[in-house]
Parts: sequence; structure tokens; C-alpha cells
Amino acid sequence: MPVKTLFYRNHTLYVLDQLQLPQRKKYIACRDWQQVAQVIKKMNIRGAPAIGLAAAFGIALAAETQEARDKRRFLDQIRKAAGELKATRPTATNLIWALRQMLDHLAKIKDQDINSIKVLLEKKAQQIWHEDVLINKKLAVHGEKLIHRKDRILTHCNTGALATAGYGTALGVVREAHKRGKQVSVLVDETRPYLQGARLTAWELKEENIPFHLISDNMAGHFISRGEVDCIITGADCVTANGDTANKIGTYILAVLAKENKIPFYIAAPLSTIDTHIKTGSDITIEERPADEITMIAGIRIAPEGIKVKNPAFDITPHKYITAIITEKGIVKKPYLKNLKKLK
Amino acid sequence: MPVKTLFYRNHTLYVLDQLQLPQRKKYIACRDWQQVAQVIKKMNIRGAPAIGLAAAFGIALAAETQEARDKRRFLDQIRKAAGELKATRPTATNLIWALRQMLDHLAKIKDQDINSIKVLLEKKAQQIWHEDVLINKKLAVHGEKLIHRKDRILTHCNTGALATAGYGTALGVVREAHKRGKQVSVLVDETRPYLQGARLTAWELKEENIPFHLISDNMAGHFISRGEVDCIITGADCVTANGDTANKIGTYILAVLAKENKIPFYIAAPLSTIDTHIKTGSDITIEERPADEITMIAGIRIAPEGIKVKNPAFDITPHKYITAIITEKGIVKKPYLKNLKKLK
Repeated sequence: MPVKTLFYRNHTLYVLDQLQLPQRKKYIACRDWQQVAQVIKKMNIRGAPAIGLAAAFGIALAAETQEARDKRRFLDQIRKAAGELKATRPTATNLIWALRQMLDHLAKIKDQDINSIKVLLEKKAQQIWHEDVLINKKLAVHGEKLIHRKDRILTHCNTGALATAGYGTALGVVREAHKRGKQVSVLVDETRPYLQGARLTAWELKEENIPFHLISDNMAGHFISRGEVDCIITGADCVTANGDTANKIGTYILAVLAKENKIPFYIAAPLSTIDTHIKTGSDITIEERPADEITMIAGIRIAPEGIKVKNPAFDITPHKYITAIITEKGIVKKPYLKNLKKLK
Repeated sequence: MPVKTLFYRNHTLYVLDQLQLPQRKKYIACRDWQQVAQVIKKMNIRGAPAIGLAAAFGIALAAETQEARDKRRFLDQIRKAAGELKATRPTATNLIWALRQMLDHLAKIKDQDINSIKVLLEKKAQQIWHEDVLINKKLAVHGEKLIHRKDRILTHCNTGALATAGYGTALGVVREAHKRGKQVSVLVDETRPYLQGARLTAWELKEENIPFHLISDNMAGHFISRGEVDCIITGADCVTANGDTANKIGTYILAVLAKENKIPFYIAAPLSTIDTHIKTGSDITIEERPADEITMIAGIRIAPEGIKVKNPAFDITPHKYITAIITEKGIVKKPYLKNLKKLK
């Protein structure tokens, strides 16, 4: 049974603190939308689908915690919360998607009384949460068909239960192949600077007894060039109309290595990550994160003080490098511009 | 004035403890060859030329510390020390080269009395040390010609004063270009797992006011693909007859990225790093280092306990990716098999 990344109970959103994994398994209780914005911003919770879900519950809390009796003010405050939640992580498409779902729903129910709106917004967030698990499972079942017996799969970042409501995207595909007895093994990129691979993916794979080795990101090329990797699967933070994909920094390198060494490179992404209104990768805003994610690890300084750092959280993989995009509605191949449009 | 990585005084080899940089600048005093073997093995000192120099002084100490009066036993003990020093880092060509220099010299002077041999071996090690600085400077002067005004140079690992007797190979080229007013700037790969870039290269560049940004290794592709890198220069741990090059893990990825994005990829290596007796990269032994270099940083666990890890210290960059090899005798271009042979 995969871990619960977040759940909502008694008007409180409980978020598993991923900054403390794998050492401690502790939940943070968010009782208002501002706390939800904080845990997203600080990356206590991360992973494109998971932060979308957290934001959806953030909207439920923005309604729930208000004492306003004036409907107009009540609705304005919810919309204001949505704007601030959206700004927490500028590259994440699911975040925008989930907030859009909530606001569209709000538009439909806005004529009801305040208490009903509170109840219905919570219900909507719970529904998005439940659907996320189902979508992940469907995606995994499609993606699993691309995996051969004994495949050695390289993955980057964390795209498992911890990044979603409970099954995973790229790691969901691996889970499904393992469950079906395909004897897969995984090479896990540690994924600097935040170490999602070392801390989170390694932890999930260990919990489920899926064979893996942890490596530092710069080792991927070594193993790929020696023929020790059969395919690469990663998740996505944003897929554009032409298939260009923003994902965790380092993904582009893997795609280039796959091309150079003639192995397939797959993206696993639910439709909520695909935004066909964005034309190409160059239209995506890349989030720049704080310098101390590079110069400090676990509170310890690893670089001289007062130096300049660059810390983009994502990079863009042009569509030409992507062998296929795995979605809950099936596997999409080139030309993406045409084939992605068909799905939406 | 670059930092002194190692120096020999009063029958003691002082080695700057690079595991403590950039926090503390402390020297370890090695009074016998076994201590020298330890500091090489534990990577208190690292960098292909620097460990060759340390090993040369190790041989001087293997002679100096002996109380044997029997010449044959005396010589045997020195040769035994050479064998054990050689085994400390299996991929480093300079280590083998420096030990060969010392043993060849020993063969020449072996008929002299024990005390004279002690003096002459120390003198030989000092000579190799002095020559290393001169060789680095010559190499830098040649390499500097490849650098254009305002070039943004990406480098990996540490190839500066800390990796050599005092000027550097790849970083020596950068130093020379800076000294000549070319207004270069550097992107420094942090270089997991040992963080030579974050801890050592950043420290050297900061000390000398050469502009740079520190990045994690997986960010290199992002900046290269955006046209923000003009060339890549790295050092080498072993260059074979056909130009295939073993260097710090992650180098191969940079070479592939350079090819894909059409920027030059240079190797800076003194002749002592080039071994034309080794035919190709597939004949090089790749050192596998301890798992806790991946799972721990500065004594803090960053991955779950009891997991499997791979930790190759080097990778092989096939010669086809290398635009030029910069040596103290000039810049070598393809075909390397022919052109490297001419130099030796």
C-alpha cells in the first residue's frame, strides 16, 4: 500500500512533510489556505499532481475558514487565495489546472448559500483527489505495455505515490510492471539539489521491494553508454501543445543521452499536466529556487559563503527527444501537436 | 598566489586536507609512506597530478623512514611501497607515471650508499613537484589561445591549484585567460558525490576573483541548450592512445551535450596523464568508490539505510566527442592516435 502524501479530515489538510523523509514520517496540519501556500512554496509537498491536490484543498480551506457573511466578499477572498496559491510554483501546470477546476466549480455553485458552498468545495477537492489515484492507475496500465521483461529503467526525481495522491506517474508505470511480475530494476538519479530521488524515490522503492540502485545524476551517462539502461521514464511538470516538456532540472540531459545511445525516452503525464494553450517549451516560465538549496545540504554548508549560484528548478526537453508520452487515455506518439490535441 | 596543495619539509609531506575545505584550511603531516597511501585513498588529497606528486614523496618517505642497513632489503621495501601506493587509486595515470619516474631514478642510483639514495630520492620528488608547476603553466599558455574574450566556460570537478602542484590544468587555462584580461566567466558543476566543484573549484575561483556561478551537475544541459555556454574544459585522469579519456564521473555527459549543441569540448591534460600504452577507453579500469559517498553528505544521511548504490568515480569520454586535447607541448587535434604519438 503506497504512502498517503496528503489527506483532508475535519477541515484540516494533512501534508506528509517530504523535507523530513526518509528520516522521519511526519504530517503537517494546514488549517488555512496560507499554510497550504507555505508548504507548497517550501516544498514540504512537491510533485506536480500532489501540489495541484494541495491547492484544491487550499481553496476548500479558503472557504471554510472565512467568517464573512457577505457573499461577495466571501467569493472575492476565495479568488484571492486562488491567485496566491497559483503563484507558489510558477512552472506547475497541475497547480493551475486544479485551481481552475475549483474556480469553475465555484462559478457553478456561487448562488448557493455560504455554508453549502463550503461543503461543495470540500467535496470537489475530495473528488479531484480520488480521481487522481484512478488516473494514475490508468496511466500505469497503459505505460506498462512499453516495459519489457527484465528492463533496466532509469528515472529522475520522484514521480511516485509521494508526488501524487497515491500511485505515481513514471514510478506508477514501474510499480505496475513490477506488480505484473516483469522483474524490472531501476536506476534512481539522486536528483540534486532537492534529492527527491535519494530521499523519496529510493524510500518508496525500498518500501515496495522493487530492486534499484541509487546513483548521482552525473552517473546516468556512464551506465547508459555501457548499455546498462533499457529505457528512461520521467514525469512532467508541464507538457505544451507541441510535446515540449518542462520537468525537473536534469531531464533534458537524460533525453539527449537517450537519443545519443538509441534507447527510448518516455514522459508519463496525466492530461492535467498537458496544457495545449501553451504553444512550445520556450513559452514556459522556469522557476528559479533559492541559492541555499545548492550551497547547503541538510543544514550543512558545502560551498564557500557569498558565492553566486544558479538554481533553475526545471528544464525544457524539446519534443523531438521524446519517444512517447504516456497518459491515462493511452500512449501518444509523434506528431504531438496533432496527437495531443485529439486527447484533450 | 594559488594555494599550496602539498609540500615536503624536514622529512614530512604536508598535505592540505581537501575533505575539510572550504570550512577549514588544515594540513595533514605524513611522516611515512603508509600515511601517504591513506591520504590518497581517503581523498584528503585528490586530482590526478596532485596524487602523483604525493606518491612521489611517498617513495622518498619509504626510503627515509627505513632503518634497514641491508641494501637489498632497503630497495625491496621501497619497491613494495611503490606497489601499494599504486593500488590506492586504480584509474589515475599520473600516479603510475610518478611512481615509474621514482623507480626508474632508483634503478639509476641503486649502487650508491643508503644515505645518498635517501637524499637523491627526495631530490627527485622535489624536482617532479617543481616541474609540475612549469608544465601546468605551459599547458595554460597553449590552452588560453582557445579562449575568446568574454567566453562563458563550463567546467567539472576541480582541476586547479588543488589538483596539482600549484596552477592547474583545465582551471589553469581559465586562470591564464583571466590573467590576460579576457573577462571570462565560469559555470562550475558542483560535481557529486565528492563535491569537488562546490567545495574546491568555487573556493579557488572566489580566492582569485574570477567570476563564476555554481550549479548542480544536472543543470549543465539547461544552460548549454540555452546558448549560455561557449565551451567546456575539463581535466583528465587518463588519456589513452586513441584519445579516449577517463575523467571524473559526469564528464561523458558534458561531451555529449557539447556535441548535441555544437560547442567545443576540450580536455586539458599534461603528458604524464596520457598513456599511449593503453589502446582505448575500454581498457581502463574504472574505480568504484564506497557507497556512503552517495548516501551521506558531511556525515548526514540523505538516503534510506540499507539500499544498493553504484559509485563509479570516473567515466570514459570517447575521443570522437573531444574537440582538442590541451598539453604542455601544444594543442592536439584529431586524429589523436597519430597526433598523440608524435608528442610522447
